[in-house]
Amino acid sequence: MRLVTYIANLSAPRLGAISSGLVVDVERLGAANGLSLPADMLTFIDNGATMLPALNALLGSGKALPPGSALPIENVTLCAPIPRPRKNIFGIGLNYSEHVAESARTLDTDKNLPKQPVLFSKPPTTVIGPGGAIHHNAKMTQQLDWEVELAVIIGKTATRVPVEGAMSHVFGYSVMIDVSARDNRRAGQWIFSKGMDTYAPFGPCIVTADEIPNPHDLRLWLKKNGEMKQDSNTKFMIFNVPFLISDISTGITLEPGDIIATGTPSGVGAGMNPQEWMWPGDVIEAGVDGIGTLRHPVVAV
Amino acid sequence: MRLVTYIANLSAPRLGAISSGLVVDVERLGAANGLSLPADMLTFIDNGATMLPALNALLGSGKALPPGSALPIENVTLCAPIPRPRKNIFGIGLNYSEHVAESARTLDTDKNLPKQPVLFSKPPTTVIGPGGAIHHNAKMTQQLDWEVELAVIIGKTATRVPVEGAMSHVFGYSVMIDVSARDNRRAGQWIFSKGMDTYAPFGPCIVTADEIPNPHDLRLWLKKNGEMKQDSNTKFMIFNVPFLISDISTGITLEPGDIIATGTPSGVGAGMNPQEWMWPGDVIEAGVDGIGTLRHPVVAV
Repeated sequence: MRLVTYIANLSAPRLGAISSGLVVDVERLGAANGLSLPADMLTFIDNGATMLPALNALLGSGKALPPGSALPIENVTLCAPIPRPRKNIFGIGLNYSEHVAESARTLDTDKNLPKQPVLFSKPPTTVIGPGGAIHHNAKMTQQLDWEVELAVIIGKTATRVPVEGAMSHVFGYSVMIDVSARDNRRAGQWIFSKGMDTYAPFGPCIVTADEIPNPHDLRLWLKKNGEMKQDSNTKFMIFNVPFLISDISTGITLEPGDIIATGTPSGVGAGMNPQEWMWPGDVIEAGVDGIGTLRHPVVAV
Repeated sequence: MRLVTYIANLSAPRLGAISSGLVVDVERLGAANGLSLPADMLTFIDNGATMLPALNALLGSGKALPPGSALPIENVTLCAPIPRPRKNIFGIGLNYSEHVAESARTLDTDKNLPKQPVLFSKPPTTVIGPGGAIHHNAKMTQQLDWEVELAVIIGKTATRVPVEGAMSHVFGYSVMIDVSARDNRRAGQWIFSKGMDTYAPFGPCIVTADEIPNPHDLRLWLKKNGEMKQDSNTKFMIFNVPFLISDISTGITLEPGDIIATGTPSGVGAGMNPQEWMWPGDVIEAGVDGIGTLRHPVVAV
């Protein structure tokens, strides 16, 4: 299933499911069928074990959708699927080998492959939905960079889970651009350089895990002003999804709705010769095949 | 005012105000006086500009407290004042000069004073309330360390605020122990080593900003098994509270309820010769004068 958070007619953000090009309002569809389903993504994820099969059954029943519960997708505004994560997004640095190499050439990172996942975080205030403006504050940065990533959405609490059982903790997948102000790293810590407002374009939807049996064979790509900059495949991850979940959960409990941005392949601006950055007026498009695409203007603030 | 989150008689956590050795239930006190006041700290902070004066007036009115709205503090269990922060806690590394020196001797940090605040984060899942067990997982760490810190609680949204106006964004102050597994730093990133479950003992209360006109002259100290390990004063901070708020807000919007752990003075275990760590059976006490003290056992898990 493809789930979105959407706004129609100036409503508050609401949970929708995509069906035949329509956005079906999950709460209204449930209500018309005597089922209590939520209007927001996080409550749905919290109860995914029961609600996802129930929603699947309703959408697959062949019954006509109740009046007013579905809109053409062109008529709604998509938000980030989780507009406000409950904790900082977990980012994984240096998780594609060619990106490790390009980073070591131009940034201050190690040229050897990491022996363990490199974790950092992005506050919930970084999140913007599809089409939202990536802020360029010239007082803060002259090195604004892009990174397309597969985002994993946790569905079930994970504390010290083994690799073998880790995939059962995944609710679904989405796309995230991990924007970085490369000139704002501080004592090696990345939260400030990657954590500024608008630095996490996120969406356009969450595809539930049942529809992506293998998250390690998905093309992911990013274009700046129509020109391809990153074009790779999730099969080149150094630490794969179950390993990341198991590893983080050795120390940090992962919870429903938590987001792991699994790292970016090569082709970032810092790695180019000469280096390239994002500037006001640029347009960034990015996608993961089977999930969807994002398109964001860079805007001076 | 001193505000707490407390449990009595197996209730859910509730917001209380300390008055004459009693914990006064804020919601019940309000209700008895025709005022709608919340049962949780975050909603109170969100509305602090109106609710704090209202609560002050009620407590100062001299009227008898309504039956059932107050309990002796010995009869309640204190929780972390904000049991579940809305985003990761902001930590400030290397913010006391003697701690910069001891860290450079034994860890991989720079011996020069930082030119800008060094930011990292601790997930909400790190938070434990007064008396809670600090987990020692011997599979993960043999270098579990302590750091007592003054915690600043944000009261008003801050985006690019100047230093001059920054203090008006403070709701209050508390105590936090920034626990670190020194052997779990990864590529220099601290979120994993400082972000594990139970690594942020927090409390016992929030003292509102009006009662601490100068947060830069508070003694802070930490004892392990009764022996003083850290004993310093917030006047030795390199970057003070308004500077930190202004600086973070240049890129990251601070929101009501956000927590900044402002860094620790010298005396951490990593800086000792020979080095000392926390082990199961140890008891850690820490405090900031004028706010309160914490006492936590270290427990094997």
